[in-house]
Amino acid sequence: MKENGIGPGQVIRRKGDGALEYQCDELTVEEPLEIRIGRKTVATTMRTPGHDEELAAGFLLSEAIIRNSDAIKRFSRPASARNRENIITVHLAADAKPKLNSAQRFGTISTSCGLCGKETIDAIRQNFPPIRSRSIRIDIDTLLRLPAELQAKQSEFARTGGIHAAGIFAADGKAQIVREDIGRHNAVDKAIGRAFLDRKLPLDRHLLLVSGRASFEIMQKALAAGIPIVASVSAPSTLAMEFARESNQTLIGFLRPPTFNIYSHVERVVLD
Amino acid sequence: MKENGIGPGQVIRRKGDGALEYQCDELTVEEPLEIRIGRKTVATTMRTPGHDEELAAGFLLSEAIIRNSDAIKRFSRPASARNRENIITVHLAADAKPKLNSAQRFGTISTSCGLCGKETIDAIRQNFPPIRSRSIRIDIDTLLRLPAELQAKQSEFARTGGIHAAGIFAADGKAQIVREDIGRHNAVDKAIGRAFLDRKLPLDRHLLLVSGRASFEIMQKALAAGIPIVASVSAPSTLAMEFARESNQTLIGFLRPPTFNIYSHVERVVLD
Repeated sequence: MKENGIGPGQVIRRKGDGALEYQCDELTVEEPLEIRIGRKTVATTMRTPGHDEELAAGFLLSEAIIRNSDAIKRFSRPASARNRENIITVHLAADAKPKLNSAQRFGTISTSCGLCGKETIDAIRQNFPPIRSRSIRIDIDTLLRLPAELQAKQSEFARTGGIHAAGIFAADGKAQIVREDIGRHNAVDKAIGRAFLDRKLPLDRHLLLVSGRASFEIMQKALAAGIPIVASVSAPSTLAMEFARESNQTLIGFLRPPTFNIYSHVERVVLD
Repeated sequence: MKENGIGPGQVIRRKGDGALEYQCDELTVEEPLEIRIGRKTVATTMRTPGHDEELAAGFLLSEAIIRNSDAIKRFSRPASARNRENIITVHLAADAKPKLNSAQRFGTISTSCGLCGKETIDAIRQNFPPIRSRSIRIDIDTLLRLPAELQAKQSEFARTGGIHAAGIFAADGKAQIVREDIGRHNAVDKAIGRAFLDRKLPLDRHLLLVSGRASFEIMQKALAAGIPIVASVSAPSTLAMEFARESNQTLIGFLRPPTFNIYSHVERVVLD
């Protein structure tokens, strides 16, 4: 208990009628995770603990550091470090050739000179080819059901808005993998990391739904997993739209039933 | 015009009555910005173009790379690069000693071994001392007016939700600096960068309001600028709350008039 009796987890809440109450409050946990390959630190990110192996695997995939999950032999925690739960080491197979020079900052992009949005897209596209097929299509009724499906799979706490969610769905609208994190990117990395570890890539008959905005990096991560359709409940950015158009990805924004917007490759949505 | 007549800026919109319309749509611009000190690339971030000098200055400050704005002599763009608008070079004074070893990834933290939330806080606190004074106090009526003040200073487009905003306010509730960006952190860096360049630090009689969640890094940036009160319209994280408590910062969350929560150092809010 500190300052005026307000200890960790306790808050002063002002209610609508102006009254004050002292109350316990659940907050989203935010802790750093250091991802190592062998002894080398590849990245440190602020994440919500849980599914760390998936987060590490999804990160290595979406950064094009490894391309095949066979490259991952096992994960470990340091034996002795005091904060072992905030460090994860990925042990690669002896013949794995991680592209560590492409290791990049979380939340940023890898090319580091003379870049523009177009060049950024080109650089990423060298790592990941555009979606080949246009085999799957989704109908409007299924699309409109997805936000409720995502919510149904989220924790009660997540529904209150303190945390982001990412869901991988089959074309019939069934949720396959749903993950949550304080960071939008981390939630996507966890979801595609799970599929990657389960050897289910490419997810070329699947759809990704994110609870927040669709930025460039969300599209990049979806492409790394081979996902042809990305839906977001909020706005996309210009670069997300350009990336989607060039990567043959369908980008849906503002998916708030009964309305939505389609920003690219409408041919995958059955509109009639 | 590409795929079925949908060109850049155009979308297919599904309306509430199920009808489809083809429409132009304004999207938040997202482009990379490479920040250089002399010839060295310090960071690359995805940002909304505009106020790049402030973004660079605010980043260098909040990463503790420089501490005094006298260290910044001028900014420049490359003369020849094709994408010069996405590169900014900070030219430092001859006697400036940038702490480049502390240069860190955007969206991540600098300590890279054996870290936990507590150690992260300690590492940051070595760079920035806790707020000393508790001199300013804010009353509830002023606090409740801030979200509307922030909105009033935002662009019409921003009010539609495609972009984040950060505002620095005086204790009487007057907005001093309001900046917008697709990234929450960038909006804060731009706002404190402006004050930094104007030699107005420490902002120890000011308040920061952010449109999104209050994460650890938002608190860190506020501390770098000496801001004692941080308010957020959404949820804080556990680490943001711990950081605020240890840094002598008042953290207010879910500021949605007429309600709000106080997570730390309530003594700065006049509650009666």
